[in-house]
Amino acid sequence: MAKDITLMWGAGSPPCWRVMIALEEKNLQGYKSKQLSFEKGEHKLKEVTDINPRGQLPAFKHGNIVLNESYGACLYLEDQFKSQGNKLIPDNKAESALMYQRMFEGLTLFQKIAQSLFYTRFVPENERHDSAVKRNRDDLKTEVKLWEGYLQGTGPYLAGKNFSLADVIVFPVIAFLFRFGLNEEHYPKLAAYHNTVKDRPSIKNTWPPNWKDTPGQDALKDL
Amino acid sequence: MAKDITLMWGAGSPPCWRVMIALEEKNLQGYKSKQLSFEKGEHKLKEVTDINPRGQLPAFKHGNIVLNESYGACLYLEDQFKSQGNKLIPDNKAESALMYQRMFEGLTLFQKIAQSLFYTRFVPENERHDSAVKRNRDDLKTEVKLWEGYLQGTGPYLAGKNFSLADVIVFPVIAFLFRFGLNEEHYPKLAAYHNTVKDRPSIKNTWPPNWKDTPGQDALKDL
Repeated sequence: MAKDITLMWGAGSPPCWRVMIALEEKNLQGYKSKQLSFEKGEHKLKEVTDINPRGQLPAFKHGNIVLNESYGACLYLEDQFKSQGNKLIPDNKAESALMYQRMFEGLTLFQKIAQSLFYTRFVPENERHDSAVKRNRDDLKTEVKLWEGYLQGTGPYLAGKNFSLADVIVFPVIAFLFRFGLNEEHYPKLAAYHNTVKDRPSIKNTWPPNWKDTPGQDALKDL
Repeated sequence: MAKDITLMWGAGSPPCWRVMIALEEKNLQGYKSKQLSFEKGEHKLKEVTDINPRGQLPAFKHGNIVLNESYGACLYLEDQFKSQGNKLIPDNKAESALMYQRMFEGLTLFQKIAQSLFYTRFVPENERHDSAVKRNRDDLKTEVKLWEGYLQGTGPYLAGKNFSLADVIVFPVIAFLFRFGLNEEHYPKLAAYHNTVKDRPSIKNTWPPNWKDTPGQDALKDL
């Protein structure tokens, strides 16, 4: 069915994971799936850069059509397979607006995570400052609190009562927070959301394989 | 017609501008438009934070529905007013995929612009490094060259022969480059794109008012 789809991905990467979730939700199992290792630098292999000249994962193809931007791939899959699998854009106007709002705020959440957790990866040693480390962490805390607040009013999903593209796209980012030790007691609404959604088949079937075998980290336990 | 739409915006901000272009393209003139000044800090006014708790512009409302994320607002307007004004998502599968690809790569382009041009705005004085300034500028140059290359193969629009959401969203970012002095001779394809699209009615009608009266800057003239 989905033999004309190719996805190259790296484990635990929210951009890769969300495309995998979208494929499951649209009943597009059976695509050509190739797991590559960021650690080994395999995202710079020619087979990746032939599809994604930025040398990033995901690298995604549908027939001869290339679409490597993960948000774009999710929107495209919903457009192309509207009546197949689960509907991911709610008909209700208010719910669809909230879906778009959360989807794109998810970019800010992930940016603040990356800025804080991967500071030493992105900032050369001679340019590092404790003041920046502290500011990035404070910014991340403020951002995570905002999301905890969002889930006070709505639920069980990010845009309300229906699972939507907002969840496809942002759940992997929230799962990432818990993988890095976010304390469930400090963020009970986010924890409840995480615990509800993680058992959904599309999520279970695509859970990062390396997360199953290795313990999480505790970088965020005091956030 | 569009009296139930409110947009608060700041001049020259690509996120604000793209929502204004989308409104024009969908024939939604006559909305409640309020220009605010970033310089005066008006994006932190209560009338903004009541709609957009992040204290950012745009702040956008359709009836009681709030949608402040500019990408989201553009997608929502296309969804809700599909058969009104200009169609912004091509029917052709390959063209729609290219549209999504460029739309979301636009985030990277804008991020690299911001990182380079607004370095002193974002980085406190004691954390600044010449090595970072140079790297950010090199990264921006690499990125802009990539876009120059994209326009070699396609055109006249970013996703091919039709004006689409990719243009609604990324044109303001490309216009921003030229406003900051990008040299037309170094980037002839981007210049041709800029010159073609800038005369489109939706763009002319929403051109940043402060850009009309003040000279551009030359920060990027040697890029």
